[in-house]
Amino acid sequence: MNKQSIFMLSMTTVLMTAITFGMTGHSAAQKRDRFKLVIHGGAGTILKSNMTPEREAAYRAALTQALQTGHAVLKNGGSSLDAIEATIKVLEDSPLFNAGKGAVFTSEGTNELDAAIMDGATLKAGAIAGVKRIKNPISLARLVMGKSPHVMMVGEGAEIFARQNGIEWVDPKYFYTEERWKQLEEAKRKEKQQNDPAAKPDAAKPDRKTSSLISDDKKFGTVGAVALDKNGNLAAGTSTGGMTNKKFGRIGDAPIIGAGTYANNRTCAVSATGHGEFFIRSVVAHDISALMEYRGLSLKEAADLVVMNKLVKMGGEGGIIAIDKDGNIAMPFNSAGMYRGYVDADGKVVVEIYKE
Amino acid sequence: MNKQSIFMLSMTTVLMTAITFGMTGHSAAQKRDRFKLVIHGGAGTILKSNMTPEREAAYRAALTQALQTGHAVLKNGGSSLDAIEATIKVLEDSPLFNAGKGAVFTSEGTNELDAAIMDGATLKAGAIAGVKRIKNPISLARLVMGKSPHVMMVGEGAEIFARQNGIEWVDPKYFYTEERWKQLEEAKRKEKQQNDPAAKPDAAKPDRKTSSLISDDKKFGTVGAVALDKNGNLAAGTSTGGMTNKKFGRIGDAPIIGAGTYANNRTCAVSATGHGEFFIRSVVAHDISALMEYRGLSLKEAADLVVMNKLVKMGGEGGIIAIDKDGNIAMPFNSAGMYRGYVDADGKVVVEIYKE
Repeated sequence: MNKQSIFMLSMTTVLMTAITFGMTGHSAAQKRDRFKLVIHGGAGTILKSNMTPEREAAYRAALTQALQTGHAVLKNGGSSLDAIEATIKVLEDSPLFNAGKGAVFTSEGTNELDAAIMDGATLKAGAIAGVKRIKNPISLARLVMGKSPHVMMVGEGAEIFARQNGIEWVDPKYFYTEERWKQLEEAKRKEKQQNDPAAKPDAAKPDRKTSSLISDDKKFGTVGAVALDKNGNLAAGTSTGGMTNKKFGRIGDAPIIGAGTYANNRTCAVSATGHGEFFIRSVVAHDISALMEYRGLSLKEAADLVVMNKLVKMGGEGGIIAIDKDGNIAMPFNSAGMYRGYVDADGKVVVEIYKE
Repeated sequence: MNKQSIFMLSMTTVLMTAITFGMTGHSAAQKRDRFKLVIHGGAGTILKSNMTPEREAAYRAALTQALQTGHAVLKNGGSSLDAIEATIKVLEDSPLFNAGKGAVFTSEGTNELDAAIMDGATLKAGAIAGVKRIKNPISLARLVMGKSPHVMMVGEGAEIFARQNGIEWVDPKYFYTEERWKQLEEAKRKEKQQNDPAAKPDAAKPDRKTSSLISDDKKFGTVGAVALDKNGNLAAGTSTGGMTNKKFGRIGDAPIIGAGTYANNRTCAVSATGHGEFFIRSVVAHDISALMEYRGLSLKEAADLVVMNKLVKMGGEGGIIAIDKDGNIAMPFNSAGMYRGYVDADGKVVVEIYKE
């Protein structure tokens, strides 16, 4: 080896060492500061004109509590999966959202819960659908991911798996809330009216007491969270009580990996809420990821293209929340409103409901 | 407008007219000749050494019959959806494949069937999971797509929808076959042995009579079809009896739109068969479509990348069949074998089982 070669080699080594150390140091520090959490509590015709100040305050408080819970997990070095589960449990335990405690009623007067969770680092996923006795469906979805060779379980089978693995059943009555029951009655009244055009519309007109519930009819109730943790790992989770007055064991997009829930460290984590059928047909969450990975779009470009363009053309109402591997976030929705919020590493909570 | 402008305009008009007529004429004729059907009957450790000549002949005959049935539909101008449904019904009615009549048994000794269908022209889709009393699940999936506002229905709810819409229930005993029952017994014996390491392996050794069934243990039984019709429309369908000895209401990739089944006229139609959990986590069918649409890969390039590279790295065994909007087909699999075949517009049937 001549002097020139040795010099070149030395310079290359110095340069590569500098790059490696520089990048690692920089990148790790950036990542540590970049942990972030984004949530939604459903989208739909959520208008300020239909909302009382008390009700709005209650929603804002619940969303804030959920964000603070997840933030504490991430700040203490917890994984994005831990943060997702803890955050969604808060939303499931609130009667305000259509998930867990606040789940809507099926046509038969039961509550059927769906949920999914996905780990962007390993592409492992867990999903459950149609369970009636699980207080926190997101925790069962995580158990399916972690403690079974399967991704998706439905109905009683999923409940048996839960109990065999230490998740206690709750009495289905736990999911009863007066507001959701009234929504079911209202939905059935409307359905009867539609099926019997001779019926006087006035007869089905709700009184003042229930009128605040009507707008909820077009609310696509789901809760979801996406997070980036200190180690740069992404995760996504979604939980829902489905549709008011739903029939025939219908399943929406929430528990469908790629549709309502998806996470991949190469791209982003996504949780959707909206008219589930359109979100399944459009494979919404994976489509956003694919547009980033294969077409090189930014998270915002990909999310906007799918939610504000493709879904709109199809007639699919709703929205998504998403976060990418660099901590950029997107919360597009094509409905009147979407309960949503995020919290940065500094702990500053932002909660929004309407178009702003 | 001066002479030069008029000349330019005229030339442009002539050129565009030529292009338009040329392309349309050419394209329509090509499309009419390009209708095609591809099917699979499951992938796994299917080895010539485990197969008797009689059994192989039976598989070849059933696959050929399915292809001829679908070909007749397409040749007569039927839609790709009609061809998919007719083709898959033939495979469901055969006891040879793990779908419909030949469905495997769950741990509880029941048969739970899943299926999905998707229309590439409209992106409409229908899926059902966990039904026990439907002779042809693919027809119920199509009914869900055509006659309900939903995409996916599960369990008894889906069966009620079926009956309300004219699909008669069959006695669950219809799905009993001696071979599948023996496979369940064999799977339970192995499971017991695994859970009790003290048990002598010899005690669980099967006799000669059942040994031919063991290889089936690693066969991912599913049937599927993808087609391009005379109008250039794509469609995909998949049907399965799930996994032998399956527990907890497990659902695989077959009824998951984007995972086991996907069709989009812009790209391709895909039906998958394999270790379903990996196919869900990889959103296999939509990933192939996205690689074509967003990265510009050919069908073969996209299908090979997903099945022979991405899935292999993850440990996901199985294969897919696919057809693109130009009639190109792909049938990659990373397992020992895959029951598969295709038929061109000229009616020439090709059936393959092993690696060739």
